[in-house]
Amino acid sequence: MMKKGAKARALVTLLTDFGGNDGYVGIMKGVMLGINPAIKFIDLAHEIPLHQIAAGAYILNSAYPYFPAGTIHVAVIDPGVGSDRSILLCEAKAQFFLAPDNGLLKFIFHNHRIDRVIRVTNPGYFLPAVSHTFHGRDIFAPVAAYLSIGHRIENFGEWTSDFKRGNLPVLKMTKNSITGEIVYIDRFGNLITNILPKALDIVPGGAQFWIRIGSHQIKGIASCYANGGENEPIALWGSSNSLEIALNQARADHFLNVNYGDEVCLEWFDDN
Amino acid sequence: MMKKGAKARALVTLLTDFGGNDGYVGIMKGVMLGINPAIKFIDLAHEIPLHQIAAGAYILNSAYPYFPAGTIHVAVIDPGVGSDRSILLCEAKAQFFLAPDNGLLKFIFHNHRIDRVIRVTNPGYFLPAVSHTFHGRDIFAPVAAYLSIGHRIENFGEWTSDFKRGNLPVLKMTKNSITGEIVYIDRFGNLITNILPKALDIVPGGAQFWIRIGSHQIKGIASCYANGGENEPIALWGSSNSLEIALNQARADHFLNVNYGDEVCLEWFDDN
Amino acid sequence: MMKKGAKARALVTLLTDFGGNDGYVGIMKGVMLGINPAIKFIDLAHEIPLHQIAAGAYILNSAYPYFPAGTIHVAVIDPGVGSDRSILLCEAKAQFFLAPDNGLLKFIFHNHRIDRVIRVTNPGYFLPAVSHTFHGRDIFAPVAAYLSIGHRIENFGEWTSDFKRGNLPVLKMTKNSITGEIVYIDRFGNLITNILPKALDIVPGGAQFWIRIGSHQIKGIASCYANGGENEPIALWGSSNSLEIALNQARADHFLNVNYGDEVCLEWFDDN
Repeated sequence: MMKKGAKARALVTLLTDFGGNDGYVGIMKGVMLGINPAIKFIDLAHEIPLHQIAAGAYILNSAYPYFPAGTIHVAVIDPGVGSDRSILLCEAKAQFFLAPDNGLLKFIFHNHRIDRVIRVTNPGYFLPAVSHTFHGRDIFAPVAAYLSIGHRIENFGEWTSDFKRGNLPVLKMTKNSITGEIVYIDRFGNLITNILPKALDIVPGGAQFWIRIGSHQIKGIASCYANGGENEPIALWGSSNSLEIALNQARADHFLNVNYGDEVCLEWFDDN
Repeated sequence: MMKKGAKARALVTLLTDFGGNDGYVGIMKGVMLGINPAIKFIDLAHEIPLHQIAAGAYILNSAYPYFPAGTIHVAVIDPGVGSDRSILLCEAKAQFFLAPDNGLLKFIFHNHRIDRVIRVTNPGYFLPAVSHTFHGRDIFAPVAAYLSIGHRIENFGEWTSDFKRGNLPVLKMTKNSITGEIVYIDRFGNLITNILPKALDIVPGGAQFWIRIGSHQIKGIASCYANGGENEPIALWGSSNSLEIALNQARADHFLNVNYGDEVCLEWFDDN
Repeated sequence: MMKKGAKARALVTLLTDFGGNDGYVGIMKGVMLGINPAIKFIDLAHEIPLHQIAAGAYILNSAYPYFPAGTIHVAVIDPGVGSDRSILLCEAKAQFFLAPDNGLLKFIFHNHRIDRVIRVTNPGYFLPAVSHTFHGRDIFAPVAAYLSIGHRIENFGEWTSDFKRGNLPVLKMTKNSITGEIVYIDRFGNLITNILPKALDIVPGGAQFWIRIGSHQIKGIASCYANGGENEPIALWGSSNSLEIALNQARADHFLNVNYGDEVCLEWFDDN
């Protein structure tokens, strides 16, 4: 039965590490369309490095603010499938989030100060036979589809405050430095950090600063990729508004030999 | 002209080896939408290893049971494009299947005991100029689109019982062993076999069994991927319900150095 | 407000070098659906080699003739993002084209003799905060979405005739040869040239010709891929109707050690 508000929920995004080879994502969509033929799907990403929950969490966080109210986000990066890990469902900013309890939703929990979520346990919403290896098809897909036709989130299980909130990387500040880290590396090899513009409020007015990453130093902040010369990494404010290190038409990660979690340090002379 | 039942057929899945680089899949969709703007597309897979018909057949078989009645499945892994190979169209389980006559539909034929199919020969349903190299665009796409608006399958050609049925791998049984083979290797390197639970009915009650693959032995059957230790392959009942060999968070195919068609042998002591 | 003709424009194609890893394409779609929930998306290609504008231009050219009137094509291969490069919008064959001013639309301009386009400058159609690095999200997506609900192209900026028309590769003819070049290499390693059938009108009737590529000679023109033997490249008329060099079930580009822009020469004996 179609419930009130169903139309507004007919948009489902999918974020997995299933790749494009095996048909797994297509199968999930088939299951959902069997329940609600009106669903429109948006693929966020399916080529996430296997089991890289942190990358998936980052992408979901960068994407959901751009989706309309009622959107249902289904994230299945789930190395614990078939174990006793829970599946979580919550609502924030009038959107819905469905994911394993493994930190994939850590930014959602943080941004919206969520302290209670639904643990999905109602088998009435699962496929009749639940496999040990493909909950994307057997649980996530039908749950998202029933949600899309207006079922209330509390129908799918029980409220819990016992779930993995995950840790967000924090900045380390001294009187002449701000140290963040690489939180995402995109397809272009651009290095996205957790340093936001407001962090620079502590830089004394007029102070020149430089950015240290690996054994490299970058002076100041550029305004676009094309500003960088060959073999000359630049720093700029990226699309998520955070400090990004890039190489014009080349991969900064390879050039600088850095990876997820590596330090990025903004420094200035402390003349006072 | 829109025929009766057209709405129920507006779902088209696509399975190809065209990849995501060249625009070929998008072009097929453009052709279809020009004929029926209401089509909804589901991409099953497009990164199938080039010309690997067996992998495509496996994926289609794992996917179609999860799609609603009226779905049209278009599979174009077609190394014989432009030769005199036929294009086949059939109906099974109230779904439609369109593919080259090269074994891609072997599971469909087997599962549903299909002994007659349509050979697609009616050029009235093709694009005006049919190329030698891209029948996906020139034949498959318009045929699927006209099918989606309710044209009957016999309009597209003539019935034939002369087509490639393909061979399904069969189990070899002895009094103390069941030997199957690897029928699919997924993105995670999981090895999917053709051994189904019911095959184990011949194992004597209470008998301990082990699984031999390559030079490796696996004891018993685990319940989820996370149960496996590092460098310790496990066996479990996979998402297609068949026996699957996996390595927790790593590739079993590389670790065991095995490939498509390699033997997987379930053995037990015959005490009787 | 929905404008007249809006329905006819609800089809949007996307062509980018964003890949499937980072969520960038999904974010663009989220932005568009927030403005026009009725948009249907077709992904042309997202795995284009980074910054390869020529490949993108080729794919767009091979695809758009197969899309219905009203389609909006959004192409974002944009190494100059954030610099002062312009964004162009034009209409041709009742379809719309939105792309950076870097040659991506060169075939459209050429095929339709376009001498005026809109330079997109009206910030009223952009997201409130325009980043330096992701105009796909901040400019292209909302512009395409407003276009899809019927806004007129001249609303988005001003007419200009000052834009990069781009150069199409031209054939060199002698009395016993036609020299073209490789303009695209597809996923299968097939080499697509700019030699069209009509170029062969200058070949004397009955003259035998051969095709020289790298250090290799190919005799005559085959009718399908399957005609080629192992390690025996063939030439055939490809799906875009141009001369194509291929290897049956293998990569011609690797076998012949050739690349974009390399010469392909059709020669014959000049007996007169």
